[in-house]
Amino acid sequence: MATAGKVIKCKAAVAWEAGKPLSIEEVEVAPPQAMEVRVKILYTALCHTDVYFWEGQTPVFPRILGHEAGGIVESVGEGVIELVPGDHVLPVFTGECKDCAHCKSEESNLCDLLRPVDRGVMIGDGQSRFTINGKPIFHFAGTSTFSEYIVIHVGCLAKINPEAPLDKVCVLSCGISTGLGATLNVAKPKKGSTVAIFGLGAVGLAAMEGARMAGASRIIGVDLNPAKYEHAKEFGCTDFVNPKDHTKPVQEVLVEMTNGGVDRAVECTGDIDAMIAAFECVHDGWGVAVLVGVPHKEAVFKTHPVNFLNEKTLKGTLFGNYKPRTDLPKVVEMYMRKELDLEKFITHSVPFSEINTAFDLMLKGEGLRCIMRMDQ
Amino acid sequence: MATAGKVIKCKAAVAWEAGKPLSIEEVEVAPPQAMEVRVKILYTALCHTDVYFWEGQTPVFPRILGHEAGGIVESVGEGVIELVPGDHVLPVFTGECKDCAHCKSEESNLCDLLRPVDRGVMIGDGQSRFTINGKPIFHFAGTSTFSEYIVIHVGCLAKINPEAPLDKVCVLSCGISTGLGATLNVAKPKKGSTVAIFGLGAVGLAAMEGARMAGASRIIGVDLNPAKYEHAKEFGCTDFVNPKDHTKPVQEVLVEMTNGGVDRAVECTGDIDAMIAAFECVHDGWGVAVLVGVPHKEAVFKTHPVNFLNEKTLKGTLFGNYKPRTDLPKVVEMYMRKELDLEKFITHSVPFSEINTAFDLMLKGEGLRCIMRMDQ
Repeated sequence: MATAGKVIKCKAAVAWEAGKPLSIEEVEVAPPQAMEVRVKILYTALCHTDVYFWEGQTPVFPRILGHEAGGIVESVGEGVIELVPGDHVLPVFTGECKDCAHCKSEESNLCDLLRPVDRGVMIGDGQSRFTINGKPIFHFAGTSTFSEYIVIHVGCLAKINPEAPLDKVCVLSCGISTGLGATLNVAKPKKGSTVAIFGLGAVGLAAMEGARMAGASRIIGVDLNPAKYEHAKEFGCTDFVNPKDHTKPVQEVLVEMTNGGVDRAVECTGDIDAMIAAFECVHDGWGVAVLVGVPHKEAVFKTHPVNFLNEKTLKGTLFGNYKPRTDLPKVVEMYMRKELDLEKFITHSVPFSEINTAFDLMLKGEGLRCIMRMDQ
Repeated sequence: MATAGKVIKCKAAVAWEAGKPLSIEEVEVAPPQAMEVRVKILYTALCHTDVYFWEGQTPVFPRILGHEAGGIVESVGEGVIELVPGDHVLPVFTGECKDCAHCKSEESNLCDLLRPVDRGVMIGDGQSRFTINGKPIFHFAGTSTFSEYIVIHVGCLAKINPEAPLDKVCVLSCGISTGLGATLNVAKPKKGSTVAIFGLGAVGLAAMEGARMAGASRIIGVDLNPAKYEHAKEFGCTDFVNPKDHTKPVQEVLVEMTNGGVDRAVECTGDIDAMIAAFECVHDGWGVAVLVGVPHKEAVFKTHPVNFLNEKTLKGTLFGNYKPRTDLPKVVEMYMRKELDLEKFITHSVPFSEINTAFDLMLKGEGLRCIMRMDQ
């Protein structure tokens, strides 16, 4: 492309300080260095994690947030052989170098090189590729998709079917794959089983979609907000439990209503009590609980060890155990074959210029995913 | 047999009260009732759990302890069709009814009917089959093998190859299978992997034997007693760690010496700190820790939930996940094919009349298994 090797000036939404509305600015995006790729973002969505860091989880400002998106390769840096300009890609907050012990293990997707570390800069030279009038703007989650162009490590890009609609499959870049994989890859419910999902946001509902796809016959949603039940029914939710409606711990409620416990539980809130409940509500002998939600730094998981000796299993997962480059293209194909429904996750769509509306919707708890169209 | 249907008078070692030497007495053993079997015990071994209950864990006295043994069916009660007099059997403290959800599940061996409950009496009628001068003596662990004859539920008997030497395979009736299965059935180390075993008693060394059989290339024994290392070498132990030799927590020592953590850990002490260490020392991405040791009632398992999110798995097991009737005959065949070495677990042998010597050896921590010969 004519832009290859040159600095690109484009629009980006910059977070100048914690909790303040984002500001659409013209930024300079440097060319990709070795093992990097510059991507033109077409669609980006807003995920809770963006809000979490926008609120000041780590005081790294100014920076460009955003990590759930779909785009097209503009140019590639030295050493990049798997991608060429024009390829359709999903950027991912975690990566796959294909060379470390984790990437070589069938069991792990925690790439030694590219697992999430909040650096704010590129891994290669410790610099940012974003500047405004020459002053660096920090990256976020290795992706920073709230920009028309981004520079990203090749290991964090999944090359997908160019027929796939980017305005839909962009949601697979983070939250939906996280929930879906937690169920399909880690909890692995059998056909006809009972599955409890804790937290009915987008990730929880994606976990629920996984339970539906696996053929679970009973899917119990657990959430403090009773309004979530109606929407969850579209995802196969057969029963709803609001812990606030009960005086006894929710794990006891679930054990009683399932004659001994659920076969699988997936925890998508990050609340430590929900984590403990998700583990304790699984059936002895074969129950498996999977932790997805990210806990508070100080949180401590506590349970009686006899719960383990009763042959319950507890696992956790990052990004649904999907290896971004190897597995994400296959998830896109699941959507293309209509095995996986993504449309029901996309409840809103706004022009990129109205990104603060997407933040408002999420802060109010309205909807699941709001897609931002970069060309508007 | 001539004794079928009649009360049998025989020798048994009776625990009259907590912590006092056992007393060899003549007891009456009633005929088996429906779904029960009367077994002539030929060899019995002493397991830590016997000592634990002898010390007064539950004040159920007088009773006949013992649960690790081998014998021959003397007679069967109504409804017993799988066994006939003369069959060689291993009695087991847990059972397999073959009819409940657990028995029908491939994943569980926690039979609803016959899982361990310290009743002290038969499950059928709530009575004991042992008496002395007509006064009932309590059973233990559904087995009470410190008697020349016992009455046991058919679901707690594994029918084994009659060619198998009962003085050797009797140790598979509890501890050795528990450790072996914890590794082979639950931890499932791959060939070439690194396995840590916490606690180098008989159960831990059986877990180590499982690691050796699975082809682990590095087996790290963890014990507070340095004398255990020499014996453990016979079981494939390549490294030894004594937590007392280090100022930092043992999980940190193990993570450092294995470049990120062990692939599998099996905890066989029941100490809560060892349980936590066993979990925290496994590698992120793929590590699996298995809890075997029975903890104190008040123990609380505590860890940071991020350990789970880093894709570590924690499981527990009872009796190595073996289903007694289905699986134990296969373990006996592993011994018959010389894949499994049992001789190295049998460090002592005494006549049944010297049972208190076996208790003394265990209390002093000497040896692994002491076999008692009932005919002497």
